[in-house]
Amino acid sequence: MSQTTTSYEKQIDKKIYAEDVLLKQQQAAKAILDVKQPSKIITFGGDCSISQVPFDYLHGKYPKDTAILWLDAHPDIMTPQDFDHEHAMVLGNLLGHGAPNFAKTVQHPFTPEQVLYVGLVEKSLLDFETDFLKAHKLSYLTPQELASSQSLLQWLTNNKFKQFLVHLDLDVLTPSDFRSLLCNKPHQGPVDYAVGEMTLAQISRLLLDASQVADLVGLSIVEYLPWDIINLRNELSKLPIFK
Amino acid sequence: MSQTTTSYEKQIDKKIYAEDVLLKQQQAAKAILDVKQPSKIITFGGDCSISQVPFDYLHGKYPKDTAILWLDAHPDIMTPQDFDHEHAMVLGNLLGHGAPNFAKTVQHPFTPEQVLYVGLVEKSLLDFETDFLKAHKLSYLTPQELASSQSLLQWLTNNKFKQFLVHLDLDVLTPSDFRSLLCNKPHQGPVDYAVGEMTLAQISRLLLDASQVADLVGLSIVEYLPWDIINLRNELSKLPIFK
Repeated sequence: MSQTTTSYEKQIDKKIYAEDVLLKQQQAAKAILDVKQPSKIITFGGDCSISQVPFDYLHGKYPKDTAILWLDAHPDIMTPQDFDHEHAMVLGNLLGHGAPNFAKTVQHPFTPEQVLYVGLVEKSLLDFETDFLKAHKLSYLTPQELASSQSLLQWLTNNKFKQFLVHLDLDVLTPSDFRSLLCNKPHQGPVDYAVGEMTLAQISRLLLDASQVADLVGLSIVEYLPWDIINLRNELSKLPIFK
Repeated sequence: MSQTTTSYEKQIDKKIYAEDVLLKQQQAAKAILDVKQPSKIITFGGDCSISQVPFDYLHGKYPKDTAILWLDAHPDIMTPQDFDHEHAMVLGNLLGHGAPNFAKTVQHPFTPEQVLYVGLVEKSLLDFETDFLKAHKLSYLTPQELASSQSLLQWLTNNKFKQFLVHLDLDVLTPSDFRSLLCNKPHQGPVDYAVGEMTLAQISRLLLDASQVADLVGLSIVEYLPWDIINLRNELSKLPIFK
């Protein structure tokens, strides 16, 4: 198995970090949905990979006229050739690309026409991400294009979507509005990946407006990183009173 | 009842905000301790007022040689003449001053000689706070004096303390190290009260070192303000999927 890496260096053995565990977790989530058969799903993360099983299931439930709004600073269409962390591949999996062992479990894959990136930070796209978006004609709206809801509403209505699923990667938010983000670890300094530019108020306004023209039936909230609690716990757990 | 205020303007009617509720909560906490009789207490806040009952109880349990380390950017010795929020008066209550209706419930009051402020931001003290500290000879160590643990250890050993209680107001921390603080509300800008200057690593080092010379028997962790979760909840709760 490859080592954990935080860079995008090319992987040598093309294995996914903790692949077996992640595949088992997804099987378990699928088994619950198969029994419970909900009509709407709200999922709290965890990392981006938590969206795969609920979105696949909901696409089975709503096979027609269902859109994905992918709120994220990053496109999440990497493959094991690019990185070893599955969380960067989950939209790729849902589109039939991504990580093969995960993509092949998707029973109701989406087409690129069903996907709109919301808040993608265009200037920080990596070359192979730009190439993938172009090759597959994936649509996106930048934070600047989302100053009003108009373009988003037009995309939904032009395509006659009746339902939509929202993947809310919190890193779509600017760290000045929301601090509990990977990019915002105390004392870390600038990071080499895209940092979000939206605010919570903008996100809720966009989703409320979108809810006027289609039904929000799936919502994943992912990549919450509560540094303060992690660090407080790590430091205070050293004290004898906690032993 | 006076209105909620966030400034330190002189109060007109000298009432404490939500006094009845707070007094009842403290009675309930006291009743639990009277039954359970713990030898050590860890309390998670809530605001600073949560330290009063546990510290009073522990002083009854350890009537001799017990110190309070008050880790805070602020001295918490206000009175209803200064403010209407009880959380700024709790150490005053424990010393027999503060808010009369709270102070009179303290069964085992402390003397100023038992108290050491740790991380107090001296330059931001209000005039009446400075006067109170001087008049009552309360000791403090500034963030700068805590670069090493030596002064703290000297204070504990010189006074032959066998036990110590720690009130950890998280606002003793600098917002660059710990973000979930009142002073650090997103988009709020600079505040007109003292902002902490310590780091979690410094705090745990000081408390670990102190634990080598005396027993930590009480720990209150207070004033955690998870803005991200509060704001995320407020915004997302507007969406129909949460109704």
